[in-house]
Amino acid sequence: MPSLLSLSLSLLLLFNGCLARQSSEQQFQFQNECQINRLNSIEPTSRIQSEAGTTEWWNPNSQQLLCAGVSVFKYQVEPNGLVLPSFTNAPQLVYIIQGRGIQGTVMPGCAETFQESQQGQGQQRPGRFQDQHQKIRRFRQGDIIALPAGVVHWFYNDGNERLVTVNLLHTANSDNQLDNNPRRFNLAGNPEEEQRRLRRFAQQQIQGSRSEREEMEEEDDEEQDNRPSRKQSGSRHQQQSSSCNNLLCAFDQEFLAQAFNVDTSLIRRLQEVRGQKGSIIRVRDRLDVVSPPRMEEEEREERQQEQRYRQRHPFGRDNGLEETFCAMRMKENIADPERADIVNPQAGRLSTLNRYNLPILNALGLSAERGVLYNRAGTVPQWCINAHKILYMLEGRARIQVVNENGDTVFDDNVEQGQLLTVPQNFAVLKQAGSEGAEWVSFFTNSEAANTPLAGRVSAIRALPEEVVAASYQISREDARKLKFNNEDTFFFTSSRSERRDEA
Amino acid sequence: MPSLLSLSLSLLLLFNGCLARQSSEQQFQFQNECQINRLNSIEPTSRIQSEAGTTEWWNPNSQQLLCAGVSVFKYQVEPNGLVLPSFTNAPQLVYIIQGRGIQGTVMPGCAETFQESQQGQGQQRPGRFQDQHQKIRRFRQGDIIALPAGVVHWFYNDGNERLVTVNLLHTANSDNQLDNNPRRFNLAGNPEEEQRRLRRFAQQQIQGSRSEREEMEEEDDEEQDNRPSRKQSGSRHQQQSSSCNNLLCAFDQEFLAQAFNVDTSLIRRLQEVRGQKGSIIRVRDRLDVVSPPRMEEEEREERQQEQRYRQRHPFGRDNGLEETFCAMRMKENIADPERADIVNPQAGRLSTLNRYNLPILNALGLSAERGVLYNRAGTVPQWCINAHKILYMLEGRARIQVVNENGDTVFDDNVEQGQLLTVPQNFAVLKQAGSEGAEWVSFFTNSEAANTPLAGRVSAIRALPEEVVAASYQISREDARKLKFNNEDTFFFTSSRSERRDEA
Amino acid sequence: MPSLLSLSLSLLLLFNGCLARQSSEQQFQFQNECQINRLNSIEPTSRIQSEAGTTEWWNPNSQQLLCAGVSVFKYQVEPNGLVLPSFTNAPQLVYIIQGRGIQGTVMPGCAETFQESQQGQGQQRPGRFQDQHQKIRRFRQGDIIALPAGVVHWFYNDGNERLVTVNLLHTANSDNQLDNNPRRFNLAGNPEEEQRRLRRFAQQQIQGSRSEREEMEEEDDEEQDNRPSRKQSGSRHQQQSSSCNNLLCAFDQEFLAQAFNVDTSLIRRLQEVRGQKGSIIRVRDRLDVVSPPRMEEEEREERQQEQRYRQRHPFGRDNGLEETFCAMRMKENIADPERADIVNPQAGRLSTLNRYNLPILNALGLSAERGVLYNRAGTVPQWCINAHKILYMLEGRARIQVVNENGDTVFDDNVEQGQLLTVPQNFAVLKQAGSEGAEWVSFFTNSEAANTPLAGRVSAIRALPEEVVAASYQISREDARKLKFNNEDTFFFTSSRSERRDEA
Repeated sequence: MPSLLSLSLSLLLLFNGCLARQSSEQQFQFQNECQINRLNSIEPTSRIQSEAGTTEWWNPNSQQLLCAGVSVFKYQVEPNGLVLPSFTNAPQLVYIIQGRGIQGTVMPGCAETFQESQQGQGQQRPGRFQDQHQKIRRFRQGDIIALPAGVVHWFYNDGNERLVTVNLLHTANSDNQLDNNPRRFNLAGNPEEEQRRLRRFAQQQIQGSRSEREEMEEEDDEEQDNRPSRKQSGSRHQQQSSSCNNLLCAFDQEFLAQAFNVDTSLIRRLQEVRGQKGSIIRVRDRLDVVSPPRMEEEEREERQQEQRYRQRHPFGRDNGLEETFCAMRMKENIADPERADIVNPQAGRLSTLNRYNLPILNALGLSAERGVLYNRAGTVPQWCINAHKILYMLEGRARIQVVNENGDTVFDDNVEQGQLLTVPQNFAVLKQAGSEGAEWVSFFTNSEAANTPLAGRVSAIRALPEEVVAASYQISREDARKLKFNNEDTFFFTSSRSERRDEA
Repeated sequence: MPSLLSLSLSLLLLFNGCLARQSSEQQFQFQNECQINRLNSIEPTSRIQSEAGTTEWWNPNSQQLLCAGVSVFKYQVEPNGLVLPSFTNAPQLVYIIQGRGIQGTVMPGCAETFQESQQGQGQQRPGRFQDQHQKIRRFRQGDIIALPAGVVHWFYNDGNERLVTVNLLHTANSDNQLDNNPRRFNLAGNPEEEQRRLRRFAQQQIQGSRSEREEMEEEDDEEQDNRPSRKQSGSRHQQQSSSCNNLLCAFDQEFLAQAFNVDTSLIRRLQEVRGQKGSIIRVRDRLDVVSPPRMEEEEREERQQEQRYRQRHPFGRDNGLEETFCAMRMKENIADPERADIVNPQAGRLSTLNRYNLPILNALGLSAERGVLYNRAGTVPQWCINAHKILYMLEGRARIQVVNENGDTVFDDNVEQGQLLTVPQNFAVLKQAGSEGAEWVSFFTNSEAANTPLAGRVSAIRALPEEVVAASYQISREDARKLKFNNEDTFFFTSSRSERRDEA
Repeated sequence: MPSLLSLSLSLLLLFNGCLARQSSEQQFQFQNECQINRLNSIEPTSRIQSEAGTTEWWNPNSQQLLCAGVSVFKYQVEPNGLVLPSFTNAPQLVYIIQGRGIQGTVMPGCAETFQESQQGQGQQRPGRFQDQHQKIRRFRQGDIIALPAGVVHWFYNDGNERLVTVNLLHTANSDNQLDNNPRRFNLAGNPEEEQRRLRRFAQQQIQGSRSEREEMEEEDDEEQDNRPSRKQSGSRHQQQSSSCNNLLCAFDQEFLAQAFNVDTSLIRRLQEVRGQKGSIIRVRDRLDVVSPPRMEEEEREERQQEQRYRQRHPFGRDNGLEETFCAMRMKENIADPERADIVNPQAGRLSTLNRYNLPILNALGLSAERGVLYNRAGTVPQWCINAHKILYMLEGRARIQVVNENGDTVFDDNVEQGQLLTVPQNFAVLKQAGSEGAEWVSFFTNSEAANTPLAGRVSAIRALPEEVVAASYQISREDARKLKFNNEDTFFFTSSRSERRDEA
């Protein structure tokens, strides 16, 4: 009975598929994403080429990013490149890894406070028409820029070197009422390729089991893009160029012409996006916008406004949309060694940015830290009591150990330059730089992340009575005293000590 | 081998079922409900007849309502009809589409400030016993009434025309710690049919895949009501009348008699609900309660109290339960043309209601807007940065376009009177009224929803530097200037302009 | 054709499995956990023996606990027993059922304000080295202790009787950014058995359907522990003793030695946890820590500080991490009859603890109540408008009825000493003590839980106009008046009334 056999075989194969999917546990990813037995340092999996730069996305479906409720991507922008205006469905923190530039953020309801006279252009109308627009800001290496959800922003590289940024998108933030998928809404350009990748990530989240997902972390996204063809999408009256995928392209030409009160021909030109330039384009001439003439003065004034506001509203809720928000600081440099909050000349330094020193973070529910470790120095074991920590290694390398609630070491490896590692809330972590030192930026999913060190001057061990330490570890009170008091540093340890110890 | 064939066929059918359910993506509805490729304007799917009116529910499992985390229903109440006291598991906004009446809300812990002498009834006891109860309020067409979660409320139509309301229930609100299903807890009456429909919605959410669900949007709910029979539900000592389904019916008669300190016979009468009158009953004589004698004075006084409170607590958290809450305003009329916040005599007007002009909304996390567009005028393309928008068309019709993050037009159709359309957070939307104009009310899932227009005087385009606009769209600076400055209106455009333009 | 038959049978069995899992609804537990048709009073299912006590966990996957988003466990600690330092991923409320002791909480960033001179120990160093540690507190029967998420705490039984506590862990709290599983991070000891049980609970949540889960409520956890073997967990350089499972054991010895600046040999001793003592150990000599010399004075001072703080910051957000937090009260006794908020000498008394009388609860989003009912007295039917209620019966028994939104009695049974019952938000509940009376503690998932009684002096019925009551229940106005006014008590009813009534 060969037909019976073949039938049974084919059925079993079918069954296999059926049962395999059953047991894949995929349907519980939301509930148990933080049931972490193993962590990996991860690198971007999707690289999108634009005319004047690239966008690289980490796979938002990697377990650690799902657990933390964040997505991460990286911009590389050539000199004279413009990251076209867009907004995202979740608040962002942007760290400027390299380069400098000009940046604009469109706060809804805020005035156009920057005026520009068009001298030096010598064309068009007489009588010096003045352009007006919202505040724009200079930024440079080491800046953190805070971007609220739904707020339009653009970046322009007016420097001579490549601009590199790493961007954290907190999709689990309460400001995002859509689902957990990262979304970018583009006001201009042809962002089709990025849209396609983000759609694929969303599909993977639906279809893929966790194990499959991890295999898929390498790039393979040519196939199966289930996007509904344009024809399906309702009764669109005019079919625009299919190479235009930004918000403006999708509206009816007539309506847009009326809304902007311009000729239909101008709208047609807007919607005829030329070429596959992506979302980072090269500006033909240099962008000649009015930028803050004296950066330091500008910042000083912002800080003064902020202080005045806080004196008047000592416990006010900065809800992100108040009038005073229009003038609020949205960035701060955390790379300057003089700004560091915790310094150990032998070991390294830490700069933290939270709702106290950048009040807009209160509205965003995020904070950040920039750290530096010198040759083989380390940070003491510690855990963050109220936030996930997403660490990006800027330079050098560090060996990192992460321990979960079972006392299992879920990560014990080097994190290299350009790699990302998530330390989930409450998981204990210890870091030791390699011989070349290490520099990193960490993002936290809380506007005032609090870390408890296990060792050192402000540690949990020191806060415990000596007798409790002795009894807990079944050691002598003398040993307990050593544990409590021997490391006088707050967050650091140095390798030199270990040498000293070995000699002792 | 016919048996083999039939076996294989039946197995394949079984498999089909198995695999079909596999691929239905139902298990991810929670995570990807906002992965929206297509929107529809929707109408109520379940109509529940009561003695003196009807309740119509939109299917809460429609993708757009699941994404927004809301449920919507509509009351139609005959003159002299009483919507019996009940409460819901989530905060509500009620818009009075038509009619007028009296309304009571039972705030926990607040005093019975209304006293009533029973003159004019000429019965019962001598000595004029005074009834006492909590504040009751008059309402009329155009009012928005805010109802916190878990708080008892009732409505009475004391007018001569039918009372019609549309009610939004924000189940995704943090005040609802139960799951996402809409729930009504009834203090009186026989709400069996509504309970049955709501149970079916909850079951559909469990069982149905999204595609199935959409097919089911028409009415078919006679079958498969899996409700546990009364006998299963524990060791109930006395079996009450099965036609009684409110909270009071379920408790033991003896206990209730003790709790109310009344005869068991009175409790028995309470629990013998007569007939299938549902949750809206006809009052035999007119309801003769003390209502605020001078509505305007009452409101004025409430506003004064509110202002005094806010002066004392400029940044206090109105958490919905504070003492001063007892006297707080819970309604405001947003239909009055004089109240409009944004007016364009040629195009239309907008009235917004948010936590600044109705502070209780701060506690509820909701806001609303009422809009009017005249003949073929429109509102500029815009998106809401921090809320979903649920639009209900009150009169006329408008053609609406909605665009998602991929630049796909997920909706492009007319929304007719009585239809509902959800615009998810960040999705861009454009509206143009038909020749008869359009009036609508929109609910927002945020107490201070913020919209960013793409065109007009406060738009994102105008906030961008001219050079950035020119570079982004690859147009001349002159064209960029037109885009930025040609529409001097804030939120509207008129068809006349388009005509003017075509002539130009 | 026997082979065909057997094939078809085996296939059908396979199918069965496939379809059974399909219909198990397990994948929707998150969304519909509160679709409750039946409640049970529940007892602990897992008992973990330690050297000087036991830890008993209720199954966190029971539907009612999943719905409420809480986990519950119970400590029993022998005299001289020390619950080793640990922290959890969610805020805790601890109720001291029996006994007394000393407790320490390590608030991050707070100073070591307790100094201790080592006289009376006569050993080690001359010159009286002073130990320093954070504040420690005495506690006694009837205390509620509030523990923020991620914060280290320890308990020591310095009394002569067994210490018994019931602990609520609010995993659905926004302070927990991990998933819904309860987690304990141990700083010391060998907590392997508890870790194994908690891992099994997490696996059950993934694998088990609800029905299976309920069957599993009895103990059977020897099998299938899928924990990754130590070897799998990354590139751990040194393999420590497998009987050590606390946070300190998982880190590299060399690193820890450097971090604590001590000899590697001391670290080795820390990591060599001896024996299977679990997380509650017996202290050899009595623990001789400095405890607050005069408990009452200490508390008085804390209250004064608190008051001063609140005067300065009348509406400030107590975010749990502010500097003043270091000195904040973390406990209050709610068993003292004199402290009761609501007293009826015939019926019983209620003591409530919320953000107003213990401000730290504002940060935790939790509150509690302790209640006493005398012989056959009861509490009136009521519902909590803004929180789930988790009731633990301390002494005696009460018959409790719980009613859901469908008017179904989902619970009607006695709750006995040591049993737990969850009353979901908005569900109505009525309680009558047995002849021996009843005492309970209830936890609420809101820092100011508000209950609306159906009967009595502050009830919903009394807040309604008499005419509305009469019309709603189709009773006379006289009867309506009885319902409203006959019970003059606020929350209680007595059985004597019922007797009086029967005589009438």
